[in-house]
Amino acid sequence: MRQYVVHEVIRRTLITNPDQLVVSGNTHLTYAELYGRVLRLANSLKELGIGAGTMVGVLDVNTHRFLELHYALSMLGATLHTINFRLSPEQMVYSMVHAGDEWLFVSDTFMGAVKPLTAKFPKWVVMSDDPNYPLPDVSIAYRYEDLVASGVERELPEADRVQDTDIFSIFYTTGTTGMPKGIRYQHRQILLGALQLFHHLALHTAGARVSSGDVFMPLIPFFHIHAWGMAFFPAYIGAKLVLAGAAAPDEQVKLIQQEGVTWLNMVPTQLYMLLGQPDFGNVKILTGGSPLTSGLSRQAAARGVKFSLIYGGSDQLGTAISVVPEDVAPDSPEALEWLRVGMRPLPMVEVSVRDKQGNEVPHDGHTIGAVWVRSPWLPEGYYKEPELTTNAYINGWFRSGDLGMFYPNGGLYVADRERDAVKSGGEWIPTGMLEALLSEHPAVGLVAVIGRPDERWGERPVAVVKPVADVTAADLREFLQPKVAEGKIASYWIPDAFEFVDDIPLTSAGKINKVVLREKFAV
Amino acid sequence: MRQYVVHEVIRRTLITNPDQLVVSGNTHLTYAELYGRVLRLANSLKELGIGAGTMVGVLDVNTHRFLELHYALSMLGATLHTINFRLSPEQMVYSMVHAGDEWLFVSDTFMGAVKPLTAKFPKWVVMSDDPNYPLPDVSIAYRYEDLVASGVERELPEADRVQDTDIFSIFYTTGTTGMPKGIRYQHRQILLGALQLFHHLALHTAGARVSSGDVFMPLIPFFHIHAWGMAFFPAYIGAKLVLAGAAAPDEQVKLIQQEGVTWLNMVPTQLYMLLGQPDFGNVKILTGGSPLTSGLSRQAAARGVKFSLIYGGSDQLGTAISVVPEDVAPDSPEALEWLRVGMRPLPMVEVSVRDKQGNEVPHDGHTIGAVWVRSPWLPEGYYKEPELTTNAYINGWFRSGDLGMFYPNGGLYVADRERDAVKSGGEWIPTGMLEALLSEHPAVGLVAVIGRPDERWGERPVAVVKPVADVTAADLREFLQPKVAEGKIASYWIPDAFEFVDDIPLTSAGKINKVVLREKFAV
Repeated sequence: MRQYVVHEVIRRTLITNPDQLVVSGNTHLTYAELYGRVLRLANSLKELGIGAGTMVGVLDVNTHRFLELHYALSMLGATLHTINFRLSPEQMVYSMVHAGDEWLFVSDTFMGAVKPLTAKFPKWVVMSDDPNYPLPDVSIAYRYEDLVASGVERELPEADRVQDTDIFSIFYTTGTTGMPKGIRYQHRQILLGALQLFHHLALHTAGARVSSGDVFMPLIPFFHIHAWGMAFFPAYIGAKLVLAGAAAPDEQVKLIQQEGVTWLNMVPTQLYMLLGQPDFGNVKILTGGSPLTSGLSRQAAARGVKFSLIYGGSDQLGTAISVVPEDVAPDSPEALEWLRVGMRPLPMVEVSVRDKQGNEVPHDGHTIGAVWVRSPWLPEGYYKEPELTTNAYINGWFRSGDLGMFYPNGGLYVADRERDAVKSGGEWIPTGMLEALLSEHPAVGLVAVIGRPDERWGERPVAVVKPVADVTAADLREFLQPKVAEGKIASYWIPDAFEFVDDIPLTSAGKINKVVLREKFAV
Repeated sequence: MRQYVVHEVIRRTLITNPDQLVVSGNTHLTYAELYGRVLRLANSLKELGIGAGTMVGVLDVNTHRFLELHYALSMLGATLHTINFRLSPEQMVYSMVHAGDEWLFVSDTFMGAVKPLTAKFPKWVVMSDDPNYPLPDVSIAYRYEDLVASGVERELPEADRVQDTDIFSIFYTTGTTGMPKGIRYQHRQILLGALQLFHHLALHTAGARVSSGDVFMPLIPFFHIHAWGMAFFPAYIGAKLVLAGAAAPDEQVKLIQQEGVTWLNMVPTQLYMLLGQPDFGNVKILTGGSPLTSGLSRQAAARGVKFSLIYGGSDQLGTAISVVPEDVAPDSPEALEWLRVGMRPLPMVEVSVRDKQGNEVPHDGHTIGAVWVRSPWLPEGYYKEPELTTNAYINGWFRSGDLGMFYPNGGLYVADRERDAVKSGGEWIPTGMLEALLSEHPAVGLVAVIGRPDERWGERPVAVVKPVADVTAADLREFLQPKVAEGKIASYWIPDAFEFVDDIPLTSAGKINKVVLREKFAV
């Protein structure tokens, strides 16, 4: 029996689409060529002693080399630690020591910044287009391209011994508080979880529907759940893949046009930046990680961008994707709104929204509760953190730490991180919904709602606004007031204060950094 | 962790599509109602002692009751034996004894024919719309609807203990020679294998592309690989399902129109019969099991039917589906031809075409070899038949017994069963290709090419033709001759004889019965 393991994904391209391209900077490789490079790399790495269970840290933007490492390490049964380069240096080192990285593969993009690591990690492989790129001063160091050039191009017998329950990779979450947490993925978990997103996207006609004719460009970095599965999916279906490396938004637009990119993934802040660029054609975009404001969604639609929203994360993998309900006309404003807020659990996934007693809340479109998730690809917990694991993973369920609610038609709205929600007079105020409403005001660029401690109510909401035109607190209050009568918000949701700022700080993952905002505005 | 097991497929409909319909005869059930019936049935069956590992034989056409049994038995961890009602009575009894059926669930459609079984099998459940349908004269007998009515509607704790490697079902293949062979499917095998077909169909734009908006009607019976996965897929995506029961082709057409059916599966002979019916709208059809002739494919296209061809089987599950290559215009005659003959292995599946020495043959569009298949859902072999298993399943590969070849672009053509191919002068003549070419002649209705023993060449091809207009052997020879110059066939492929018949016998699975034809024409 063939195992459900990562390296099997790419073998099929040899028969179905050997000439299809992977584009990475100036490098254009066919799948057949890429497969040859993977085999040669894997054979070289085997000679270096990398094999079953070896922990290999990789620090790179989205390049063909990072992609190749996915498949070569999979064949060897080694574990790929996709190093989260948006962590602070201290947290990054913590994650590498915690994971037990034996080898580091570092691209030239990062070599300048990570030299201090040479004292801690003795075995390096440097990845660069430059054949003479200087090696770091460590006991063992190679150039990646030398390993590819010197490797034998033949199948590895150990590849057939890798089991689908073996660990394929490990990732450390961006912690806004505390040290990063590691999550390990079995081959079958990462494949089933990541690919199910695309199966679901293919089965629904609206939004960012995928097909084998699409040209894919992930703007989510490989380190983050393998670019939300983009390290696997294009090869899985034999489609063209464009890797943006360290390209800035204007260069990304150039790539979209040059390579005929039709499908991208990105977080909403990247979408915001991309929409600031001149025209880039009718692309499809999968976004998520934080709520999409209706302002942004309308801007995107006006630009011919079809989008879908995803809900998931590194500690639960793929959970839900927005869909247009069957009784809603596909191109209506209502459909656009469903794509922005109304998600459906992926097939095989069960989502339960629960109150404090752990009982399911009514699916009435306004009762908010904690989001619990159950799926066949749920990770087993946090690596070497039994206590954190026990708190989050209970009886086969993952307590996501998110707040959400179900609409009567089964649409799931994920409102907030539980710790980001404002609790006023014992009631949760979903800041994400408030932010979405405020973003509809033409003068509002970015907006974040945080809780300010309040003697009487416990907490009261404060809106931090980055305006794009003249606007006052009174204007925004007046803008929100009618939404109370319309039943969209409760009167006590209206923020007590509006703070206007030049810029809103983002986390390493590109989300609004509410911790920093709270330190500044909620004291 | 949620297991990848059959009964989890339907739970999600409770949130996403509780009001979506399953139509079966005069019965219209929402998924929510169906789920309630499944729970009540499962609780009743539990009281009767049906539990982990109990072997339950089910004899029914495609009805909601058969569908419910899939999910109820899955929750109990029991094994569903989908009895192949196209077997001869002797073979059917053989399969039931070989599987070890403890309970028989028999619909009224079959009660007349199977009364002789009452002596052998003591525990019966009768399925009928008639609440007073007479019970058979056995020691233990119930009416299905009574069990549903009396059952408690609550979740079963044992449902959460079912593992994805547990056996879900067993099926006995239609043997044209020898006794039927049993193949057991684990939950994960049957789900991954069956659902991957639909994932693939959703990811490619041409042919029978599926989406969540489709209305599905399987004309493949549930006994055959769960109607090629149709027992799972509509629920998996929350789509409407129409079950045709024992409906004749004209009644099927009525159902298509009444219920808005957009997607069907069937074998080519069913397609042939359906095309004989008046207009039934623009439907999509998945077909396979035997090669589709180009005549039939053009007829279908002319009627607005979009079709895809599948390659797989009960002993390998889903393997390949026809696609239009990326460089072919989707609506061209060439695209139609690719949909008819050019398949791609499903993602995660590897197909290898080998010569007698076990070496891969060149992918040149004419070298024919034996088709070997490797996939994550390959069954483990034939139940209690170690010798047959050893012959067919080798080192993780399944030797399909089919002949095929690869086109240079990766398209897979499956020509024939190895045992059906004609071997002339040491070379294989792919009868399927010959049949397809002959079917292009306007006077040819059905055609089958078989081998007649020949002293000089070993075997020589004979074409058995069911004409729809006046035609002679000389006409057909003249029709084939130019194809030699066109490079489509070799000159020695042209049949030595043409036999004209009033009808061509079919096997129990609806394929042309070449065994019978050989007995008559190849001696």
